[in-house]
Amino acid sequence: MPTALPPPAPEVRAEAARRLDALAKPLGALGRLEELAAWWSACAGRCPADPPAAVRAVILAGDHGVSSDGVSAYPREVTAAMVRALVGGEAGASVLARQHGVALRVLDLAVDADLSDLPGVTDHKVRRSSGALDREDALTAAETATALAVGARVATEEIAAGADLLVVGDLGIGNTTPATALVAASLGAAAEQVVGRGTGIDDARLAHKTAVVERALERARDRVADPVQRLAALGSADLAAGVGLLVAAARARVPVLLDGIVPVAELLVAEDLQPGVVAWCAAGHRSTEPAQRLALEKLGLEPVLDLGLRLGEGTGALTALPVLRSAALLLRDMALLADLAP
Amino acid sequence: MPTALPPPAPEVRAEAARRLDALAKPLGALGRLEELAAWWSACAGRCPADPPAAVRAVILAGDHGVSSDGVSAYPREVTAAMVRALVGGEAGASVLARQHGVALRVLDLAVDADLSDLPGVTDHKVRRSSGALDREDALTAAETATALAVGARVATEEIAAGADLLVVGDLGIGNTTPATALVAASLGAAAEQVVGRGTGIDDARLAHKTAVVERALERARDRVADPVQRLAALGSADLAAGVGLLVAAARARVPVLLDGIVPVAELLVAEDLQPGVVAWCAAGHRSTEPAQRLALEKLGLEPVLDLGLRLGEGTGALTALPVLRSAALLLRDMALLADLAP
Repeated sequence: MPTALPPPAPEVRAEAARRLDALAKPLGALGRLEELAAWWSACAGRCPADPPAAVRAVILAGDHGVSSDGVSAYPREVTAAMVRALVGGEAGASVLARQHGVALRVLDLAVDADLSDLPGVTDHKVRRSSGALDREDALTAAETATALAVGARVATEEIAAGADLLVVGDLGIGNTTPATALVAASLGAAAEQVVGRGTGIDDARLAHKTAVVERALERARDRVADPVQRLAALGSADLAAGVGLLVAAARARVPVLLDGIVPVAELLVAEDLQPGVVAWCAAGHRSTEPAQRLALEKLGLEPVLDLGLRLGEGTGALTALPVLRSAALLLRDMALLADLAP
Repeated sequence: MPTALPPPAPEVRAEAARRLDALAKPLGALGRLEELAAWWSACAGRCPADPPAAVRAVILAGDHGVSSDGVSAYPREVTAAMVRALVGGEAGASVLARQHGVALRVLDLAVDADLSDLPGVTDHKVRRSSGALDREDALTAAETATALAVGARVATEEIAAGADLLVVGDLGIGNTTPATALVAASLGAAAEQVVGRGTGIDDARLAHKTAVVERALERARDRVADPVQRLAALGSADLAAGVGLLVAAARARVPVLLDGIVPVAELLVAEDLQPGVVAWCAAGHRSTEPAQRLALEKLGLEPVLDLGLRLGEGTGALTALPVLRSAALLLRDMALLADLAP
């Protein structure tokens, strides 16, 4: 097990807690905004800190072997169409990124289509789709290593471009199946505890999806203790890249605002690979997936929003971003009690 | 009972629901943002509608007779100091209003201090403080009528200034006591079901506050069926003005985003005075007060945020505003499924 990463500056967090108590308001009256403000301040390394300004969102796209198998309500072709919609500025995440001044980058890690006409999007492609995880490994060892390295490189590029906060989302029909399998394997949970309805499958597909995850867990049982083998067996290129990105961001001391079930599953694996990553992450929203709830509990994260979103592609995290900014602004700009007119 | 107001355009709401289903996303995948988007569209009277742009927040300030009586953790003098902080741009609501481009107006309805040096703030002052509601009526009938009229006039002025959305908050040490008493009287609930810790009182003060509300409810029992007499007996000038403002906004077909327990208590009374007001309101955040939960259930409102805020002065509603804007933008700007590249 590698040494744990240092957490966001504890002395700054303590200073932020003292400043929060000294603001012109009752103790604790900003509720969860106080935790967010102290976390942000500690990540930024100063108190008070300016709110996140140079926010860059990375949406990792891929298809999944299981998606031919009836685990989703949608056909695989939708993934490529949604990548084009994101690039064209008319997907949900595009709209929200524009609203909040966020630079949005979509990366095709494993879309089962030729997207080479989209400049920049396919530069980091690892493969098309993944192995059907109930019957075969999702990735080879080499593909897993490549995807992890791609994620790390993308984090480094975004940080070099000036990011003070990263947003991580995922796009791909079927992506809740590998995410759920990874959560179950990471926590030692059974398939029926974690499998959810994704974008909205019926009872028959839910039973099928549960059986797929069950078979996958059984098949990979002896290898999932190792986080890299877990990704190879049950993950996908986009999920492995997400893991690499989270580890690299935390090592570079740049915080990450996570979207729903997929990035939270990535964080569970990242934390096994490099303890201490979680302290650099905040959860943007509570998804409708049971696996996300279990993973958040284990990680000790409480999401900012709980709006029943289940769209993915970073939309939950992007919707939560102004709340994080509010927390930072309140800590910076509210009067101190001592400065109030008598 | 007056005729109910017409709800926000039902045909536009239906059109918004159809458009939401036609967007390039799974059915219902935007969760609660879909309800918000449809509500906003219906209020704006067109689909898709631009997001709320000319948002104006009105913070109604007053002191309360009971605040000399140990129902709050803070002395009455804090109210006037917080009005000055709001005007000076360094209260919580000031910070959030700046973040979101909201015009903030603070009105002294009944602050127990001379604030006449603040231009515009005291123009609508009704009185200083209010009667201690466990022993006497909070307001005379004439003061209640004046405060209701002031609220209506302020709504009219803000709408004339171009508001497409109003935010309503309240400021005043002790204000959760009259708000809680009004909720209890409106719902026929007992004091111990509704009384909460406000800005953070201990067990002894909580028991005292509960006894105060109990005595107030007993004292006013025979008159609270009438919403105006309920306000006179148990309310205050700032709360009565809030009721007047909500009724006038709904009559003018301008929607309102409500802050925590106080505006929600005002809405309960407003709805009794003029049925149909609630359809023009959205709840910004879930406060920590039990009375707010009961009132929201009765009104059928689900708050946008649940962050444990208990600061008041509009902060919960202002924190929720960008989420409402997101909902409107997603409905307006996301691609339709039919327009996606194949």
